Amino acid sequence: MLSTTPRTTLGRKKHRAVTDRSALHAVLDEGLICHLGVVRDGVPLVLPTGYGRDGDTLYLHGSTGAASLRTAAHGLDVCVTVTLLDGIVYSRSVNNHSMNYRSAVILGQATPVLDADAKRHGLKVLTDHLAPGSWEHAREVNAKEFAAVSVLALDLAEASVKMRAEGPDDEPEDVEADTAWAGVLPVRTVYGAPEPSEDLSPGWTTPEHVTARAATAR
Amino acid sequence: MLSTTPRTTLGRKKHRAVTDRSALHAVLDEGLICHLGVVRDGVPLVLPTGYGRDGDTLYLHGSTGAASLRTAAHGLDVCVTVTLLDGIVYSRSVNNHSMNYRSAVILGQATPVLDADAKRHGLKVLTDHLAPGSWEHAREVNAKEFAAVSVLALDLAEASVKMRAEGPDDEPEDVEADTAWAGVLPVRTVYGAPEPSEDLSPGWTTPEHVTARAATAR
Repeated sequence: MLSTTPRTTLGRKKHRAVTDRSALHAVLDEGLICHLGVVRDGVPLVLPTGYGRDGDTLYLHGSTGAASLRTAAHGLDVCVTVTLLDGIVYSRSVNNHSMNYRSAVILGQATPVLDADAKRHGLKVLTDHLAPGSWEHAREVNAKEFAAVSVLALDLAEASVKMRAEGPDDEPEDVEADTAWAGVLPVRTVYGAPEPSEDLSPGWTTPEHVTARAATAR
Repeated sequence: MLSTTPRTTLGRKKHRAVTDRSALHAVLDEGLICHLGVVRDGVPLVLPTGYGRDGDTLYLHGSTGAASLRTAAHGLDVCVTVTLLDGIVYSRSVNNHSMNYRSAVILGQATPVLDADAKRHGLKVLTDHLAPGSWEHAREVNAKEFAAVSVLALDLAEASVKMRAEGPDDEPEDVEADTAWAGVLPVRTVYGAPEPSEDLSPGWTTPEHVTARAATAR
Protein backbone atom coordinates (compact mmCIF):
# COMPACT_ATOMS: atom_id res chain seq x y z
CA MET A 1 0.00 0.00 0.00
CA LEU A 2 1.10 3.49 -0.67
CA SER A 3 1.45 5.90 2.14
CA THR A 4 -1.44 8.31 1.80
CA THR A 5 -0.42 10.97 4.23
CA PRO A 6 -2.33 14.24 4.33
CA ARG A 7 0.46 15.68 2.21
CA THR A 8 -0.30 13.41 -0.74
CA THR A 9 -4.03 13.22 -0.19
CA LEU A 10 -5.20 15.66 -2.74
CA GLY A 11 -8.39 17.03 -1.31
CA ARG A 12 -11.46 16.34 -3.38
CA LYS A 13 -12.18 13.38 -5.60
CA LYS A 14 -10.49 10.93 -3.28
CA HIS A 15 -12.11 8.07 -5.17
CA ARG A 16 -9.56 8.69 -7.84
CA ALA A 17 -6.65 7.87 -5.57
CA VAL A 18 -5.08 4.50 -6.18
CA THR A 19 -3.19 2.98 -3.33
CA ASP A 20 -1.33 0.01 -4.61
CA ARG A 21 2.32 0.05 -5.32
CA SER A 22 2.13 -1.68 -8.70
CA ALA A 23 0.01 1.20 -10.01
CA LEU A 24 2.67 3.65 -8.82
CA HIS A 25 5.41 1.65 -10.50
CA ALA A 26 3.40 1.36 -13.72
CA VAL A 27 2.95 5.13 -14.02
CA LEU A 28 6.61 5.79 -13.29
CA ASP A 29 7.78 3.13 -15.72
CA GLU A 30 5.58 4.37 -18.56
CA GLY A 31 6.38 8.07 -18.18
CA LEU A 32 9.39 9.58 -19.90
CA ILE A 33 9.89 12.80 -17.95
CA CYS A 34 8.95 13.99 -14.51
CA HIS A 35 8.27 17.46 -13.17
CA LEU A 36 10.52 18.18 -10.21
CA GLY A 37 9.36 20.77 -7.71
CA VAL A 38 11.66 22.47 -5.25
CA VAL A 39 11.34 25.54 -3.07
CA ARG A 40 13.82 28.25 -3.97
CA ASP A 41 13.88 31.57 -2.14
CA GLY A 42 10.53 30.70 -0.63
CA VAL A 43 8.72 30.18 -3.92
CA PRO A 44 8.07 27.02 -5.92
CA LEU A 45 10.15 26.10 -8.95
CA VAL A 46 9.04 23.27 -11.24
CA LEU A 47 11.41 21.86 -13.86
CA PRO A 48 11.09 18.95 -16.28
CA THR A 49 13.78 16.33 -15.96
CA GLY A 50 14.58 12.72 -16.68
CA TYR A 51 14.35 10.00 -14.08
CA GLY A 52 14.55 6.27 -13.60
CA ARG A 53 13.17 3.79 -11.08
CA ASP A 54 14.75 0.77 -9.42
CA GLY A 55 12.49 -0.90 -6.89
CA ASP A 56 11.28 1.81 -4.58
CA THR A 57 14.04 4.28 -5.38
CA LEU A 58 13.68 7.02 -7.94
CA TYR A 59 16.87 8.40 -9.45
CA LEU A 60 17.16 11.92 -10.83
CA HIS A 61 19.89 13.69 -12.73
CA GLY A 62 21.44 16.19 -10.36
CA SER A 63 22.48 18.25 -13.36
CA THR A 64 19.00 19.68 -13.60
CA GLY A 65 18.71 23.44 -13.68
CA ALA A 66 17.91 23.65 -9.98
CA ALA A 67 21.34 24.61 -8.74
CA SER A 68 20.24 24.02 -5.16
CA LEU A 69 19.94 20.33 -5.93
CA ARG A 70 23.55 19.96 -6.87
CA THR A 71 24.75 21.33 -3.57
CA ALA A 72 22.20 19.70 -1.31
CA ALA A 73 24.49 17.80 1.02
CA HIS A 74 21.80 16.49 3.31
CA GLY A 75 18.85 16.17 1.00
CA LEU A 76 16.38 18.66 -0.29
CA ASP A 77 12.60 18.64 -0.04
CA VAL A 78 11.23 17.82 -3.46
CA CYS A 79 7.99 16.84 -5.09
CA VAL A 80 8.27 14.67 -8.20
CA THR A 81 5.20 14.34 -10.38
CA VAL A 82 4.77 12.13 -13.43
CA THR A 83 1.61 12.53 -15.48
CA LEU A 84 0.32 10.41 -18.34
CA LEU A 85 -2.50 12.06 -20.27
CA ASP A 86 -4.86 9.45 -21.70
CA GLY A 87 -7.79 11.37 -23.09
CA ILE A 88 -9.97 14.44 -23.34
CA VAL A 89 -13.43 13.86 -21.88
CA TYR A 90 -16.18 15.64 -23.80
CA SER A 91 -19.30 15.88 -21.67
CA ARG A 92 -22.78 17.09 -22.49
CA SER A 93 -22.17 20.09 -20.24
CA VAL A 94 -19.17 22.39 -20.34
CA ASN A 95 -18.80 22.00 -16.59
CA ASN A 96 -18.27 18.24 -16.71
CA HIS A 97 -15.53 18.26 -19.30
CA SER A 98 -12.49 16.51 -17.92
CA MET A 99 -9.34 14.57 -18.72
CA ASN A 100 -8.45 10.92 -18.39
CA TYR A 101 -5.00 10.61 -16.89
CA ARG A 102 -2.73 8.74 -14.53
CA SER A 103 -0.42 10.69 -12.27
CA ALA A 104 2.08 9.85 -9.55
CA VAL A 105 3.07 12.38 -6.91
CA ILE A 106 6.08 11.64 -4.72
CA LEU A 107 7.17 13.71 -1.76
CA GLY A 108 10.45 13.33 0.04
CA GLN A 109 14.04 14.37 0.34
CA ALA A 110 16.27 13.91 -2.66
CA THR A 111 19.79 13.02 -1.59
CA PRO A 112 22.99 12.96 -3.64
CA VAL A 113 24.32 9.50 -4.39
CA LEU A 114 28.00 9.72 -3.48
CA ASP A 115 29.24 6.15 -3.30
CA ALA A 116 30.83 5.35 -6.67
CA ASP A 117 29.18 1.96 -7.19
CA ALA A 118 25.79 3.28 -6.16
CA LYS A 119 26.21 6.33 -8.39
CA ARG A 120 27.15 4.17 -11.36
CA HIS A 121 24.07 2.03 -10.69
CA GLY A 122 21.93 5.18 -10.58
CA LEU A 123 23.33 6.31 -13.94
CA LYS A 124 22.51 2.91 -15.42
CA VAL A 125 18.94 3.12 -14.09
CA LEU A 126 18.58 6.62 -15.57
CA THR A 127 19.97 5.48 -18.92
CA ASP A 128 17.83 2.33 -19.01
CA HIS A 129 14.74 4.50 -18.53
CA LEU A 130 15.66 7.19 -21.06
CA ALA A 131 17.09 4.88 -23.71
CA PRO A 132 16.83 1.14 -23.03
CA GLY A 133 19.80 -0.67 -24.53
CA SER A 134 22.07 2.35 -24.69
CA TRP A 135 23.99 1.44 -21.52
CA GLU A 136 25.25 -1.66 -23.35
CA HIS A 137 25.49 -0.10 -26.83
CA ALA A 138 27.01 3.34 -26.33
CA ARG A 139 30.45 4.36 -25.06
CA GLU A 140 30.51 4.07 -21.29
CA VAL A 141 30.86 7.01 -18.93
CA ASN A 142 34.53 7.91 -18.46
CA ALA A 143 36.15 9.11 -15.26
CA LYS A 144 35.89 12.79 -16.09
CA GLU A 145 32.21 12.53 -17.02
CA PHE A 146 31.53 10.42 -13.96
CA ALA A 147 33.01 13.07 -11.69
CA ALA A 148 31.08 15.88 -13.36
CA VAL A 149 27.65 14.30 -13.19
CA SER A 150 25.56 14.04 -10.07
CA VAL A 151 22.79 11.59 -9.28
CA LEU A 152 20.04 12.08 -6.74
CA ALA A 153 17.98 9.39 -5.07
CA LEU A 154 14.43 9.74 -3.78
CA ASP A 155 12.64 7.09 -1.78
CA LEU A 156 9.13 6.23 -2.99
CA ALA A 157 7.81 5.85 0.56
CA GLU A 158 5.46 8.83 0.44
CA ALA A 159 3.64 8.67 -2.85
CA SER A 160 0.17 8.67 -4.31
CA VAL A 161 -1.34 7.75 -7.63
CA LYS A 162 -4.45 9.33 -9.06
CA MET A 163 -6.22 8.34 -12.19
CA ARG A 164 -9.35 8.89 -14.20
CA ALA A 165 -10.12 6.30 -16.85
CA GLU A 166 -13.77 6.49 -17.75
CA GLY A 167 -16.30 8.10 -20.01
CA PRO A 168 -18.19 11.33 -19.40
CA ASP A 169 -19.86 11.76 -16.02
CA ASP A 170 -22.90 13.78 -16.99
CA GLU A 171 -25.88 14.87 -14.95
CA PRO A 172 -28.95 12.64 -15.58
CA GLU A 173 -30.89 15.64 -16.90
CA ASP A 174 -28.14 16.35 -19.45
CA VAL A 175 -28.17 12.74 -20.65
CA GLU A 176 -31.94 12.98 -20.93
CA ALA A 177 -31.83 16.28 -22.79
CA ASP A 178 -29.52 14.71 -25.39
CA THR A 179 -28.48 18.07 -26.78
CA ALA A 180 -24.72 17.47 -27.04
CA TRP A 181 -22.26 14.76 -28.03
CA ALA A 182 -20.36 13.01 -25.27
CA GLY A 183 -17.31 10.81 -25.43
CA VAL A 184 -13.58 10.55 -25.05
CA LEU A 185 -10.87 11.64 -27.46
CA PRO A 186 -7.90 9.39 -26.64
CA VAL A 187 -4.47 10.99 -26.29
CA ARG A 188 -1.37 8.88 -26.85
CA THR A 189 2.37 9.34 -26.79
CA VAL A 190 4.02 7.59 -29.73
CA TYR A 191 7.45 7.29 -31.25
CA GLY A 192 8.23 8.34 -34.79
CA ALA A 193 10.72 6.83 -37.19
CA PRO A 194 14.32 7.04 -35.88
CA GLU A 195 16.34 9.89 -37.42
CA PRO A 196 20.01 8.97 -37.77
CA SER A 197 22.47 11.73 -36.91
CA GLU A 198 23.62 13.76 -39.90
CA ASP A 199 27.24 12.88 -39.15
CA LEU A 200 26.64 9.16 -38.75
CA SER A 201 28.92 7.13 -40.96
CA PRO A 202 27.08 5.43 -43.85
CA GLY A 203 27.70 1.87 -42.68
CA TRP A 204 25.22 2.04 -39.83
CA THR A 205 21.77 0.57 -39.75
CA THR A 206 19.60 1.60 -36.83
CA PRO A 207 20.20 -0.90 -34.01
CA GLU A 208 17.47 -3.16 -32.73
CA HIS A 209 17.14 -1.49 -29.32
CA VAL A 210 16.07 1.70 -31.11
CA THR A 211 13.91 0.20 -33.86
CA ALA A 212 12.11 -2.07 -31.38
CA ARG A 213 11.24 0.91 -29.23
CA ALA A 214 10.05 2.91 -32.23
CA ALA A 215 7.70 0.05 -33.04
CA THR A 216 5.95 0.36 -29.68
CA ALA A 217 3.01 2.69 -29.36
CA ARG A 218 0.73 2.87 -26.39
CA MET B 1 11.15 39.79 -24.87
CA LEU B 2 10.55 37.55 -21.95
CA SER B 3 11.67 38.62 -18.55
CA THR B 4 14.66 36.46 -17.74
CA THR B 5 15.09 37.20 -14.11
CA PRO B 6 17.51 35.14 -12.06
CA ARG B 7 14.49 33.17 -10.89
CA THR B 8 13.73 31.85 -14.35
CA THR B 9 17.31 31.66 -15.54
CA LEU B 10 17.98 28.02 -15.13
CA GLY B 11 21.68 27.85 -14.48
CA ARG B 12 23.63 25.90 -17.04
CA LYS B 13 22.96 25.57 -20.74
CA LYS B 14 21.75 29.11 -21.07
CA HIS B 15 22.01 28.83 -24.84
CA ARG B 16 18.86 26.80 -24.70
CA ALA B 17 16.83 29.67 -23.33
CA VAL B 18 14.51 31.30 -25.83
CA THR B 19 13.48 34.82 -25.08
CA ASP B 20 10.74 35.75 -27.45
CA ARG B 21 7.13 35.87 -26.48
CA SER B 22 5.81 34.03 -29.52
CA ALA B 23 7.86 30.98 -28.50
CA LEU B 24 6.29 31.12 -25.05
CA HIS B 25 2.81 31.37 -26.51
CA ALA B 26 3.50 28.51 -28.91
CA VAL B 27 4.54 26.13 -26.14
CA LEU B 28 1.56 27.06 -23.99
CA ASP B 29 -0.87 26.75 -26.89
CA GLU B 30 0.40 23.33 -27.94
CA GLY B 31 0.52 21.79 -24.46
CA LEU B 32 -2.55 20.14 -22.98
CA ILE B 33 -1.71 20.08 -19.29
CA CYS B 34 0.58 22.07 -17.04
CA HIS B 35 2.34 21.16 -13.83
CA LEU B 36 1.43 23.62 -11.11
CA GLY B 37 3.86 24.04 -8.24
CA VAL B 38 2.94 25.56 -4.91
CA VAL B 39 4.57 25.61 -1.50
CA ARG B 40 2.51 23.89 1.16
CA ASP B 41 3.72 23.58 4.74
CA GLY B 42 7.15 24.65 3.55
CA VAL B 43 7.57 21.88 0.98
CA PRO B 44 6.87 21.84 -2.74
CA LEU B 45 3.73 20.27 -4.17
CA VAL B 46 3.41 19.72 -7.93
CA LEU B 47 0.07 18.80 -9.47
CA PRO B 48 -1.04 18.35 -13.08
CA THR B 49 -3.91 20.56 -14.14
CA GLY B 50 -5.59 22.08 -17.15
CA TYR B 51 -5.02 25.63 -18.25
CA GLY B 52 -5.76 28.09 -21.00
CA ARG B 53 -4.09 31.23 -22.34
CA ASP B 54 -5.56 34.53 -23.48
CA GLY B 55 -2.95 37.06 -24.47
CA ASP B 56 -0.49 37.25 -21.61
CA THR B 57 -2.83 35.79 -19.01
CA LEU B 58 -2.85 32.14 -18.07
CA TYR B 59 -6.05 30.77 -16.53
CA LEU B 60 -6.09 27.78 -14.20
CA HIS B 61 -8.92 25.79 -12.67
CA GLY B 62 -9.03 26.65 -8.99
CA SER B 63 -10.62 23.27 -8.35
CA THR B 64 -7.22 21.64 -8.49
CA GLY B 65 -6.24 19.50 -5.53
CA ALA B 66 -4.17 22.25 -3.97
CA ALA B 67 -6.72 23.41 -1.42
CA SER B 68 -4.59 26.44 -0.63
CA LEU B 69 -5.30 27.75 -4.12
CA ARG B 70 -9.01 27.87 -3.59
CA THR B 71 -8.69 30.05 -0.54
CA ALA B 72 -5.88 32.29 -1.74
CA ALA B 73 -7.56 35.64 -1.39
CA HIS B 74 -4.58 37.71 -2.34
CA GLY B 75 -2.71 35.47 -4.70
CA LEU B 76 -0.41 32.58 -4.09
CA ASP B 77 3.14 32.07 -5.31
CA VAL B 78 3.04 29.47 -8.03
CA CYS B 79 5.27 28.03 -10.73
CA VAL B 80 3.50 26.73 -13.81
CA THR B 81 5.52 24.54 -16.16
CA VAL B 82 4.42 23.17 -19.52
CA THR B 83 6.70 20.67 -21.22
CA LEU B 84 6.48 19.22 -24.72
CA LEU B 85 8.72 16.21 -25.24
CA ASP B 86 9.88 15.99 -28.84
CA GLY B 87 12.47 13.26 -28.94
CA ILE B 88 14.98 10.95 -27.28
CA VAL B 89 18.54 11.80 -28.29
CA TYR B 90 20.76 8.73 -28.67
CA SER B 91 24.40 9.73 -28.58
CA ARG B 92 27.55 7.73 -29.16
CA SER B 93 28.34 8.06 -25.47
CA VAL B 94 25.99 7.30 -22.59
CA ASN B 95 26.87 10.64 -21.05
CA ASN B 96 25.63 12.68 -24.00
CA HIS B 97 22.22 11.09 -24.23
CA SER B 98 19.56 13.78 -23.97
CA MET B 99 16.03 14.79 -24.83
CA ASN B 100 14.62 17.22 -27.35
CA TYR B 101 11.91 19.26 -25.71
CA ARG B 102 10.28 22.64 -25.38
CA SER B 103 9.31 23.88 -21.95
CA ALA B 104 7.81 27.04 -20.52
CA VAL B 105 8.30 28.02 -16.89
CA ILE B 106 6.13 30.80 -15.45
CA LEU B 107 6.57 32.30 -12.01
CA GLY B 108 4.10 34.62 -10.36
CA GLN B 109 1.12 34.98 -8.13
CA ALA B 110 -2.08 33.21 -9.12
CA THR B 111 -5.09 35.24 -8.12
CA PRO B 112 -8.75 34.21 -8.01
CA VAL B 113 -10.91 35.75 -10.73
CA LEU B 114 -13.93 37.09 -8.84
CA ASP B 115 -15.70 39.42 -11.27
CA ALA B 116 -18.47 37.39 -12.91
CA ASP B 117 -17.81 38.48 -16.48
CA ALA B 118 -14.08 37.96 -16.11
CA LYS B 119 -14.64 34.55 -14.51
CA ARG B 120 -16.96 33.48 -17.32
CA HIS B 121 -14.31 34.61 -19.81
CA GLY B 122 -11.70 32.57 -17.93
CA LEU B 123 -13.93 29.50 -18.08
CA LYS B 124 -14.34 29.97 -21.81
CA VAL B 125 -10.57 30.24 -22.27
CA LEU B 126 -10.06 27.08 -20.22
CA THR B 127 -12.72 25.23 -22.22
CA ASP B 128 -11.39 26.45 -25.56
CA HIS B 129 -7.98 25.06 -24.65
CA LEU B 130 -9.18 21.71 -23.30
CA ALA B 131 -11.85 21.08 -25.91
CA PRO B 132 -12.10 23.62 -28.73
CA GLY B 133 -15.68 23.96 -29.88
CA SER B 134 -17.25 22.62 -26.71
CA TRP B 135 -18.09 26.07 -25.34
CA GLU B 136 -20.48 26.50 -28.27
CA HIS B 137 -21.62 22.86 -28.52
CA ALA B 138 -22.17 21.69 -24.94
CA ARG B 139 -24.68 22.84 -22.35
CA GLU B 140 -23.49 26.09 -20.82
CA VAL B 141 -22.43 26.48 -17.21
CA ASN B 142 -25.44 27.07 -14.98
CA ALA B 143 -25.63 29.35 -11.95
CA LYS B 144 -24.94 26.62 -9.41
CA GLU B 145 -21.94 25.30 -11.34
CA PHE B 146 -20.67 28.82 -11.89
CA ALA B 147 -20.72 29.51 -8.17
CA ALA B 148 -18.97 26.24 -7.32
CA VAL B 149 -16.08 26.57 -9.72
CA SER B 150 -13.13 28.87 -9.20
CA VAL B 151 -10.80 30.31 -11.80
CA LEU B 152 -7.29 31.59 -11.19
CA ALA B 153 -5.35 34.02 -13.32
CA LEU B 154 -1.58 34.20 -13.67
CA ASP B 155 0.26 36.94 -15.54
CA LEU B 156 2.88 35.73 -18.01
CA ALA B 157 5.25 38.58 -17.13
CA GLU B 158 7.94 36.40 -15.57
CA ALA B 159 8.45 33.47 -17.84
CA SER B 160 11.13 31.60 -19.71
CA VAL B 161 11.20 29.10 -22.52
CA LYS B 162 13.87 26.48 -22.96
CA MET B 163 14.23 24.11 -25.83
CA ARG B 164 16.52 21.55 -27.39
CA ALA B 165 15.80 20.66 -30.99
CA GLU B 166 18.87 19.10 -32.52
CA GLY B 167 20.74 15.90 -33.11
CA PRO B 168 23.30 14.28 -30.85
CA ASP B 169 26.08 16.48 -29.52
CA ASP B 170 28.93 13.99 -29.37
CA GLU B 171 32.58 14.49 -28.55
CA PRO B 172 34.74 14.60 -31.71
CA GLU B 173 36.65 11.52 -30.57
CA ASP B 174 33.39 9.59 -30.22
CA VAL B 175 32.31 10.57 -33.73
CA GLU B 176 35.72 9.48 -34.96
CA ALA B 177 35.60 6.18 -33.08
CA ASP B 178 32.28 5.35 -34.77
CA THR B 179 31.48 2.60 -32.31
CA ALA B 180 27.84 3.44 -31.62
CA TRP B 181 24.72 4.57 -33.44
CA ALA B 182 23.57 8.15 -32.93
CA GLY B 183 20.31 9.81 -33.77
CA VAL B 184 16.96 10.98 -32.51
CA LEU B 185 13.85 8.95 -31.79
CA PRO B 186 10.97 11.41 -32.22
CA VAL B 187 8.25 11.50 -29.58
CA ARG B 188 4.81 12.77 -30.49
CA THR B 189 1.47 13.29 -28.81
CA VAL B 190 -1.39 12.16 -31.01
CA TYR B 191 -5.13 11.75 -30.77
CA GLY B 192 -6.86 8.43 -31.29
CA ALA B 193 -10.28 7.79 -32.77
CA PRO B 194 -13.08 9.43 -30.75
CA GLU B 195 -14.91 7.01 -28.44
CA PRO B 196 -18.59 7.94 -28.08
CA SER B 197 -20.02 7.61 -24.57
CA GLU B 198 -21.72 4.28 -23.90
CA ASP B 199 -24.95 6.05 -23.03
CA LEU B 200 -24.97 8.31 -26.08
CA SER B 201 -28.23 8.05 -27.97
CA PRO B 202 -27.86 6.27 -31.34
CA GLY B 203 -28.70 9.28 -33.48
CA TRP B 204 -25.41 11.04 -32.88
CA THR B 205 -22.51 11.23 -35.23
CA THR B 206 -19.30 12.64 -33.79
CA PRO B 207 -19.36 16.41 -34.32
CA GLU B 208 -16.85 18.15 -36.51
CA HIS B 209 -15.05 19.97 -33.68
CA VAL B 210 -14.07 16.57 -32.28
CA THR B 211 -13.32 14.73 -35.53
CA ALA B 212 -11.26 17.64 -36.85
CA ARG B 213 -9.13 17.60 -33.73
CA ALA B 214 -8.70 13.84 -33.89
CA ALA B 215 -7.36 14.28 -37.40
CA THR B 216 -4.53 16.51 -36.21
CA ALA B 217 -1.27 14.91 -35.17
CA ARG B 218 1.88 16.81 -34.48
